[in-house]
Amino acid sequence: MNAPDTFVQLLARTRESFPASTKSYITGSRSDLRVPVRDIALTNGEVVSVYDTSGPYTDPAATIDVKKGLQSVRAAWIAERGDTEQYEGRKPVALDDGRQSEDAARLAQLRQEAAALQRQPRRAKAGANVTQMHYAKKGIITPEMEYVALRENGKREWMAQYQQDPAREQRLMGNPMGAMIPKIITPEFVRDEVARGRAIIPANINHPEVEPMAIGRNFLVKINANIGNSAVTSSIEEEVEKLVWAIRWGADNVMDLSTGKNIHTTRDWIVRNSPVPIGTVPIYQALEKVGGVAEDLTWEIFRDTLIEQAEQGVDYFTIHAGVRLAYIHLTAQRRTGIVSRGGSIMAKWCMAHHKESFLYTHFEDICDIMKSYDVAFSLGDGLRPGCASDANDEAQFAELHTLGELTQIAWKHDVQTMIEGPGHVPMHMIQANMTEQLKTCHEAPFYTLGPLTIDIAPGYDHIASAIGAAMIGWMGTAMLCYVTPKEHLGLPDRDDVKQGIIAYKIAAHAADVAKGHPGARARDDALSQARFDFRWQDQFNLGLDPETAKEYHDETLPKDSAKVAHFCSMCGPKFCSMKITQEVREFAAAKGVAEEAALAEGMAAKADEFNRAGGEFYIPIHPAKS
Amino acid sequence: MNAPDTFVQLLARTRESFPASTKSYITGSRSDLRVPVRDIALTNGEVVSVYDTSGPYTDPAATIDVKKGLQSVRAAWIAERGDTEQYEGRKPVALDDGRQSEDAARLAQLRQEAAALQRQPRRAKAGANVTQMHYAKKGIITPEMEYVALRENGKREWMAQYQQDPAREQRLMGNPMGAMIPKIITPEFVRDEVARGRAIIPANINHPEVEPMAIGRNFLVKINANIGNSAVTSSIEEEVEKLVWAIRWGADNVMDLSTGKNIHTTRDWIVRNSPVPIGTVPIYQALEKVGGVAEDLTWEIFRDTLIEQAEQGVDYFTIHAGVRLAYIHLTAQRRTGIVSRGGSIMAKWCMAHHKESFLYTHFEDICDIMKSYDVAFSLGDGLRPGCASDANDEAQFAELHTLGELTQIAWKHDVQTMIEGPGHVPMHMIQANMTEQLKTCHEAPFYTLGPLTIDIAPGYDHIASAIGAAMIGWMGTAMLCYVTPKEHLGLPDRDDVKQGIIAYKIAAHAADVAKGHPGARARDDALSQARFDFRWQDQFNLGLDPETAKEYHDETLPKDSAKVAHFCSMCGPKFCSMKITQEVREFAAAKGVAEEAALAEGMAAKADEFNRAGGEFYIPIHPAKS
Repeated sequence: MNAPDTFVQLLARTRESFPASTKSYITGSRSDLRVPVRDIALTNGEVVSVYDTSGPYTDPAATIDVKKGLQSVRAAWIAERGDTEQYEGRKPVALDDGRQSEDAARLAQLRQEAAALQRQPRRAKAGANVTQMHYAKKGIITPEMEYVALRENGKREWMAQYQQDPAREQRLMGNPMGAMIPKIITPEFVRDEVARGRAIIPANINHPEVEPMAIGRNFLVKINANIGNSAVTSSIEEEVEKLVWAIRWGADNVMDLSTGKNIHTTRDWIVRNSPVPIGTVPIYQALEKVGGVAEDLTWEIFRDTLIEQAEQGVDYFTIHAGVRLAYIHLTAQRRTGIVSRGGSIMAKWCMAHHKESFLYTHFEDICDIMKSYDVAFSLGDGLRPGCASDANDEAQFAELHTLGELTQIAWKHDVQTMIEGPGHVPMHMIQANMTEQLKTCHEAPFYTLGPLTIDIAPGYDHIASAIGAAMIGWMGTAMLCYVTPKEHLGLPDRDDVKQGIIAYKIAAHAADVAKGHPGARARDDALSQARFDFRWQDQFNLGLDPETAKEYHDETLPKDSAKVAHFCSMCGPKFCSMKITQEVREFAAAKGVAEEAALAEGMAAKADEFNRAGGEFYIPIHPAKS
Repeated sequence: MNAPDTFVQLLARTRESFPASTKSYITGSRSDLRVPVRDIALTNGEVVSVYDTSGPYTDPAATIDVKKGLQSVRAAWIAERGDTEQYEGRKPVALDDGRQSEDAARLAQLRQEAAALQRQPRRAKAGANVTQMHYAKKGIITPEMEYVALRENGKREWMAQYQQDPAREQRLMGNPMGAMIPKIITPEFVRDEVARGRAIIPANINHPEVEPMAIGRNFLVKINANIGNSAVTSSIEEEVEKLVWAIRWGADNVMDLSTGKNIHTTRDWIVRNSPVPIGTVPIYQALEKVGGVAEDLTWEIFRDTLIEQAEQGVDYFTIHAGVRLAYIHLTAQRRTGIVSRGGSIMAKWCMAHHKESFLYTHFEDICDIMKSYDVAFSLGDGLRPGCASDANDEAQFAELHTLGELTQIAWKHDVQTMIEGPGHVPMHMIQANMTEQLKTCHEAPFYTLGPLTIDIAPGYDHIASAIGAAMIGWMGTAMLCYVTPKEHLGLPDRDDVKQGIIAYKIAAHAADVAKGHPGARARDDALSQARFDFRWQDQFNLGLDPETAKEYHDETLPKDSAKVAHFCSMCGPKFCSMKITQEVREFAAAKGVAEEAALAEGMAAKADEFNRAGGEFYIPIHPAKS
């Protein structure tokens, strides 16, 4: 796995399409506005089209060269606005790559690899504000907003056949819990949501490669995956492969939490090759620059780091400006104190200097930087609870109130803002947390880590937290930060990342269905219909992980013929449902039973076989009968 | 895995205690009333005691011989009541083991193995009613009820230290959603709950080996695991090992859903070796007896099968008596029709004969059998939804209403009763389903399968359903039937069973914490405290799966010394939190900073390291720094 060519191979493999899937594009009002979707061809001729986060990597027509970076999506849009300028940019210094950098020769080589990726940075012209929120407030619908609208809608035509029964639609009508999701998302709706701060479109002007997406409670619930570099960075392919792997499985956003060597160079690699927004926690890099000594941090070093990363194209910054000096003592009686790394760095700084946090005192200065590049705030919850018994406590809510105040300051500067949330919250306290956030932060998008509903599941915290994530997503959280099975224990490997993402795709989709998102449930309907019709291959392909579904099925019935067979490993071929259905109908006809009864009986028999072929409750553990 | 001796070895392995764990017993009002708990010894001298479903298998003092069966727990209690009699019992016939039995020589051998397990059956004396509900209504507190009370409480003394902060307890106070869980469960409380039908104690008089447990909304939420025999039954050890594996990981109940060969003999093996209640679906065996032809089922064959299984000691029967002729047409417009196997068998029978279900018409006859052995009803939901779009529909609720009527008939006979529930229900419809059940079925315990909240996660349905299970458990469901990752796809193997059980232990515990069960949250507190204190080994051992937690940790830090180290793989040994805490305190003292501030700073620094050592949000993917 560590040999560079292995990662090249892995990267090539993750360029393969999902089974029976084709990338297609919805074109907007201009020819360079092309929104990707994944069309899944079913064996019965239907095509189901789904949201696609995987970027150009799964487009066979795209030429990928990670050493050159992705093609630009937005460069023309940004240029056309005429409010930005290219400039020489901040001069890189050796310290940008940390104190523990490679030997000189190796570093020179790495930098040379990154050199081809360098682009001259762009910033707002003097006096200009280039945020999507600024345009939105001025009534301008940007191409980014139109892109988001088309993306949220996707292709809805195929859904109609699953939504024809008004009684069913009425019965299944979601409970939006205060969200107001229109049937069709218009570009104007996107603009309005961004203008009022209820949604953000993270899209740094220096990240023109990004495929715009929205985070907001009136849009599909999104998920974030965290990646980070290794101390031994073997190659650009390795770093990019982590990213590609995450977006392949459905990560809508990726945070680069690197703290190792070559931190600046790695970030160049990631941003230039990422079709999804990239978030960072700039204080991590700033801390590396001062040798890991929190007290030595200064506003100047931090500010320089913000500009460094903004120029590289980072789309949102986690900034723990709500960790105020006055709140730190509130954590003293906690069971697990402060568990946010950024939060504890700032707490340490505040205490060492006995001064208010420079993130708080310089918040408007930070806004000035953010609006020059359209970097969005992800206001960090440095005082979030680290265990169930610290949930919804005074420290957490004191900080949340401050984040609400800061949100209004950010909005004054038209800087897009979302709010980070916990962490560890038992089920019965999730609603209160969500309500507090909506109220305190004026509906700025909430972006939570889980929350974990219990503490006793190390090794399975992706599950313990998917429960909380689904619930809080339903209640109004806009983006869910994933948790992997390795949480609290060690470093997630490739499979852990996938497990975390799938668990969170489940949570996000469960939330969308519960909210009644008009484009959410049809995929479930299509899959369940395929299940009932014994279209096994369609059932796999409509799932979140076709490979694993097929693999599990094939453990007992590997032959291709079984994929179209009306039976499975549970009861074997004697119970072909079509045959039994036919028999029942003949029987009903012969006996002169009423048509309705015959239909009902046919359904029952078919259902019987359906159940035998993979029903829910009564799965007998035995192989196929002979 | 298929060689008999391999299963002997597996069985021996699952007899090992969990790490740092000792089985101990709480003795009740009589010396033969000994309730097992698992005491976990922590490295700081504390002992945490938890509910233990694993039976004598994890007691080193117990002699286990699967060919003789477990020692009896309840035989004396049953005998002392003086209301039962031993009798010759139903005469076994060859058909009991199904039509596809082994060759004669093999079958003779298998029966010989089972022979040592045979016990002469017991039944109620003429006119007697031997159900726990009958005793409860008469005001009698049985040893079973006292056992349940002691078991639900466990050892609570160790919890006190985690519950000393009144403000915290107030903040974390659960939301019982209508449950009324006393601080301490008394035997009288158990009696009252059983008398009013709000809880059941499944305990057939012919299953004296069972360690009594309760299923009811005012008790800990329980989980059920399904097992079943293979077509090729290699040995008694293999069958028993499946059972032991399931209870080792926490299954409170096990359903034997065998439909293969030697179905009767296998059941003897399982019941005689099971310390947990065993449930079955008798219609499965009855169907085997008529060669799989649903129309050929008769009341007489079914009745005979009930007596056969009641004599063997099955503790509860799933009976789909709510699938009435009049409801079948309600499934005709469903997306996935009838997905319960038992439901579809009965639907087919009703339609073929165009008659009301014999389960419904003979329901009082069935009650007569149930009360002679104290077999509990698990009234099956044969019309449960098989996909999200069929959730909470007319067919489902029509059947539920009938189950409510049948509950009252069962209660008239003092037969213990629980109600089975779905299945597939989106999050926003779970509350309505639970409310309908509580209202319609008069608070008889609800026993649901999941529910799955979405349909698009084949391969991960244990997660998609754990979300629904946690929520419905919080809202009032008493027992959760597990779903494994192989759901809808194939036969769960050993690891799938474990994955399903762990996901459901998470759901059940999340529900207990949310309800505010007074004995639930302390284990989370103990684990989180261990986490904060860097007691790694304690953190593993307090979790639901110590082996996996340790294994994940050891992937990067395998040495024993790392188990007590104040660092982990995330940031390495440079950041010893104790050292930093000490430094911060010295610094604070030197600067004359106020004590509170120093404390706060110490907490912050320690928390910083805590986070570095496995914090929640910002897990950088990099190995230990050098």
